[in-house]
Amino acid sequence: MRYELWYWSGIPGRGEFIRLALEEAGVPYVDIALTQAGDEKMMARMKAEKQTPPFAPPFLIAGKLTIGQTPNILLFLGERHGLAPKSDAGRFWVHQLQLTIADLVAEIHDAHHPIASGLYYEDQKSEAAGRTGNLRKERLPKYLGYFDGILARNGTGYLTGRRLSYADLSLFHVVEGLRYAFPKRMNRLEKKYRELASLHDRIAKRPRIAVYHASGRRQPFNTEGIFRHYPELDR
Amino acid sequence: MRYELWYWSGIPGRGEFIRLALEEAGVPYVDIALTQAGDEKMMARMKAEKQTPPFAPPFLIAGKLTIGQTPNILLFLGERHGLAPKSDAGRFWVHQLQLTIADLVAEIHDAHHPIASGLYYEDQKSEAAGRTGNLRKERLPKYLGYFDGILARNGTGYLTGRRLSYADLSLFHVVEGLRYAFPKRMNRLEKKYRELASLHDRIAKRPRIAVYHASGRRQPFNTEGIFRHYPELDR
Repeated sequence: MRYELWYWSGIPGRGEFIRLALEEAGVPYVDIALTQAGDEKMMARMKAEKQTPPFAPPFLIAGKLTIGQTPNILLFLGERHGLAPKSDAGRFWVHQLQLTIADLVAEIHDAHHPIASGLYYEDQKSEAAGRTGNLRKERLPKYLGYFDGILARNGTGYLTGRRLSYADLSLFHVVEGLRYAFPKRMNRLEKKYRELASLHDRIAKRPRIAVYHASGRRQPFNTEGIFRHYPELDR
Repeated sequence: MRYELWYWSGIPGRGEFIRLALEEAGVPYVDIALTQAGDEKMMARMKAEKQTPPFAPPFLIAGKLTIGQTPNILLFLGERHGLAPKSDAGRFWVHQLQLTIADLVAEIHDAHHPIASGLYYEDQKSEAAGRTGNLRKERLPKYLGYFDGILARNGTGYLTGRRLSYADLSLFHVVEGLRYAFPKRMNRLEKKYRELASLHDRIAKRPRIAVYHASGRRQPFNTEGIFRHYPELDR
């Protein structure tokens, strides 16, 4: 069985959290965004799903299962492919961290779209300036300080236990995305929260992740996705 | 062992999703919000947690486990107390639905706080009017139509399979909250999405839920929580 990852083409988006887990697990998968299918076919496939219809992409087709919601897909992949501990203490802790990463990702998205995700950034620029100011000054330090503290306390180089989990891979992508979107702000924040760069570098060097990043399969950041660089929003 | 639910006092908030699961499961628990502990002690307890520190309330203490993030707590309670199917197909589907409910709840919160959760509503009223307009016109129909369609297709009166799950309890609370916050808008929407009222009534009549609602332990809605009634935001 070959997994199928269905997601929008042309952006890393939430699909990237799934891609990183699939790549690290070394399991074969079809990334629909890299095929000729196109977004219309992706949406049609989503709407054709009657058993467990996703509300939005990404969704993963795994044999008879169709699984939606990024943290839920990671829960599934984590169990199946050794990307999460097996103990109750460990698996609920990893998932708790992933859900906190998902909250941060939603806040990062809404910073450039505080009024409506269906409108253009240009139609909500002044509100975006207000919300992004709050993100830069209060929310990013709170979240990044939280994850930095957990890494420091765990002391193994990973968020939980002695081994890599899907939450580490996702936090890697958050660091990547924030460096792209807010280079000035992140430069300062990373001087304070030093564990983040250390985790980032450790993940980037993992053999399968390095192969993935050199493969050309990775979607570049741009101003269509979750992490967007608008110079006026980075101070 | 008696569970401890730690959450802000004085609001249903995200704690209510956990309370409904605990009440339906019929398991003993201490609701810290109903004790004399106070919010300061709650925050101090949260910060004292070094093994698996929550980012924010609610969190559940279950013997040696401290579990944060509402959908994660429900995942735990669902497994332990028969509030979720045991098959892979079933348990990932219920969790997918719960995460979609969590997304809706976050959007409902941000409609009255589109710029910063740390500021007062009064400091972001005009932006709240814009975001809530989008919620009323586009997002609520999209989400409620999604859940209504799933209930209609399943045909058993529950979101998944033949039995109640934690996602049904949460959707009940969303209907309650939306009726409080947006009575005019919900009146119209419920005429279109008729399965929602049907699910709501079915849950309200469950013996343990009815006992809970008559007990005085339930927190009333008010303009401090997630679901807030501001007449100017309900058209």
